[in-house]
Amino acid sequence: MSDKSPVIVDLKFDPETVAKSLASAFPGREVINLADPATRGRDLSGISYAVVWKPDGDLFERAPDLKVIFSGGAGVDSILSIPSLPDIPIVRFVDHTLTTRMSEWVVLQCLTHLRQCFTYADMQAARQWEELAQPQASEITVGVMGLGVLGLDAVHKLKVMGFDVIGWSRTQKTIDSLETFDSAGLDAFLGRTDFLVGLLPLTPETEGFYNAGLFSRLRQGGALGKPVFINAGRGKSQVSGDIVAALEKGVLGGASLDVFEREPLETDSPLWGMKNVIVTPHAAASSDERALFRNVETQIAGFERGKALPDLVDRQRGY
Amino acid sequence: MSDKSPVIVDLKFDPETVAKSLASAFPGREVINLADPATRGRDLSGISYAVVWKPDGDLFERAPDLKVIFSGGAGVDSILSIPSLPDIPIVRFVDHTLTTRMSEWVVLQCLTHLRQCFTYADMQAARQWEELAQPQASEITVGVMGLGVLGLDAVHKLKVMGFDVIGWSRTQKTIDSLETFDSAGLDAFLGRTDFLVGLLPLTPETEGFYNAGLFSRLRQGGALGKPVFINAGRGKSQVSGDIVAALEKGVLGGASLDVFEREPLETDSPLWGMKNVIVTPHAAASSDERALFRNVETQIAGFERGKALPDLVDRQRGY
Repeated sequence: MSDKSPVIVDLKFDPETVAKSLASAFPGREVINLADPATRGRDLSGISYAVVWKPDGDLFERAPDLKVIFSGGAGVDSILSIPSLPDIPIVRFVDHTLTTRMSEWVVLQCLTHLRQCFTYADMQAARQWEELAQPQASEITVGVMGLGVLGLDAVHKLKVMGFDVIGWSRTQKTIDSLETFDSAGLDAFLGRTDFLVGLLPLTPETEGFYNAGLFSRLRQGGALGKPVFINAGRGKSQVSGDIVAALEKGVLGGASLDVFEREPLETDSPLWGMKNVIVTPHAAASSDERALFRNVETQIAGFERGKALPDLVDRQRGY
Repeated sequence: MSDKSPVIVDLKFDPETVAKSLASAFPGREVINLADPATRGRDLSGISYAVVWKPDGDLFERAPDLKVIFSGGAGVDSILSIPSLPDIPIVRFVDHTLTTRMSEWVVLQCLTHLRQCFTYADMQAARQWEELAQPQASEITVGVMGLGVLGLDAVHKLKVMGFDVIGWSRTQKTIDSLETFDSAGLDAFLGRTDFLVGLLPLTPETEGFYNAGLFSRLRQGGALGKPVFINAGRGKSQVSGDIVAALEKGVLGGASLDVFEREPLETDSPLWGMKNVIVTPHAAASSDERALFRNVETQIAGFERGKALPDLVDRQRGY
């Protein structure tokens, strides 16, 4: 048994995702996941830490020795409303890593398509030494759709890597040293775009947005010949059948997809096996649960070394 | 036949490399490569452009209608010394792209290893949907060896992507916001390094430098478990057999290699087929010839549109 104090998990999120994320979380520390029926009736006294979101009403009676409560989300109203809440620190979850992880994935995909990694991998497998004609990043226009925190971070990093970058959002945004387009400029935006990077939220307007009609308006004949579709936003914004057809017809030259209409992606989807296509399992930015557990583990370690807890909830303000 | 004016090529470089690079250069334009015996005795009158390095002494008599001479290198003394040199513009070759292309490759390799692309590719081939535990860039220390123009550009871009970056050069260099090490600090540098990026020149000191002894001093047990070796410097700086052995023994967890002791890499080298290894054919930064021909094609297009020629040689100064 580890000498690390156990941690109680009571998160009313998707139970499967929580269980899966817990599998690789909290190394060397016992996890008591209250969603697991085996923990029913378990004595929780003496336990110092709990990670909660919409916790059971009797949690604080069952676990009277808690020293810190970690909230599973930015909102803490479901914790503050529990009458038996003890007077101990409550730490809010602030995710600093989501943006940087997303940009890692987006830049990786753009460089992978730019540098023709699929063709080079095939040649490596055939032990074939041959240099391909290689455009440089500045010859490729990356069109980023969605100019929120994630989109702007990706724009910045793609520009540093040398890509020619333009941006699109539903309503016009003015951003320093970035040419931007809005709804009215969609055709002009698509006609300039070699790599389309999707970082749009899912709304009624964006459902099924990345479809055959949109792909057909992307630039043909750019420095790599055909356009590439890269989506790390929301799966329901794309029409999988249209992506497959566009790849088959050569309207698209490649794709990198982290999100899908239905997840996990069906085993029989042709996307898994298509040429110049990368499929990742909604892993572009670490799921909230994984990031949360990493964050909590780090906070516990700091707390036990005597470090002040960050992101503390102010009970008077209520957040 | 294209209506583009032909271009004469008279480059006393490696003839095979020139011929190979020409295969994909000057699209739609006839190339008269004087290294090709078939061009002997060919009438060169009426031709406007020539790309030359150490040209034949009689070139300018054979080609009396040249409008522009493009030098194949930064130095032009071998052109200026020819008595029959006509009084037309001479354009020096200034390569703006070598650095950015090299950094594209280095950042791509670091992100590929960081984001566990080999494992994800295997899972994609098996149609398996599974998210891996994923450290972020800041948890990986990239140690860049060689802090010249290429090294510093890579350092900057790796930092923007979020990696923790340290630098090494033979003699101590002081660089803003970069922790640097010199010869005396080699062990400390290696002991901190998760991804070793080699951008050293080939000198007597660096021949065989990346060997078993060096690999064994890299950090074990970092966020991805094992260190990774990435070399885009010079092939003779590395000992291929030691790389293979280190990968087999688990001293290295992966490698990305663009350069080799002998090039092309031998067909029977185990490196082609090893797990977590990327082999590219000395293509990280486009060879000088390819960049040269792209540059010349761009200059000719601009010249024919009436644009001023850049990087003109001043005959008085001699460069």
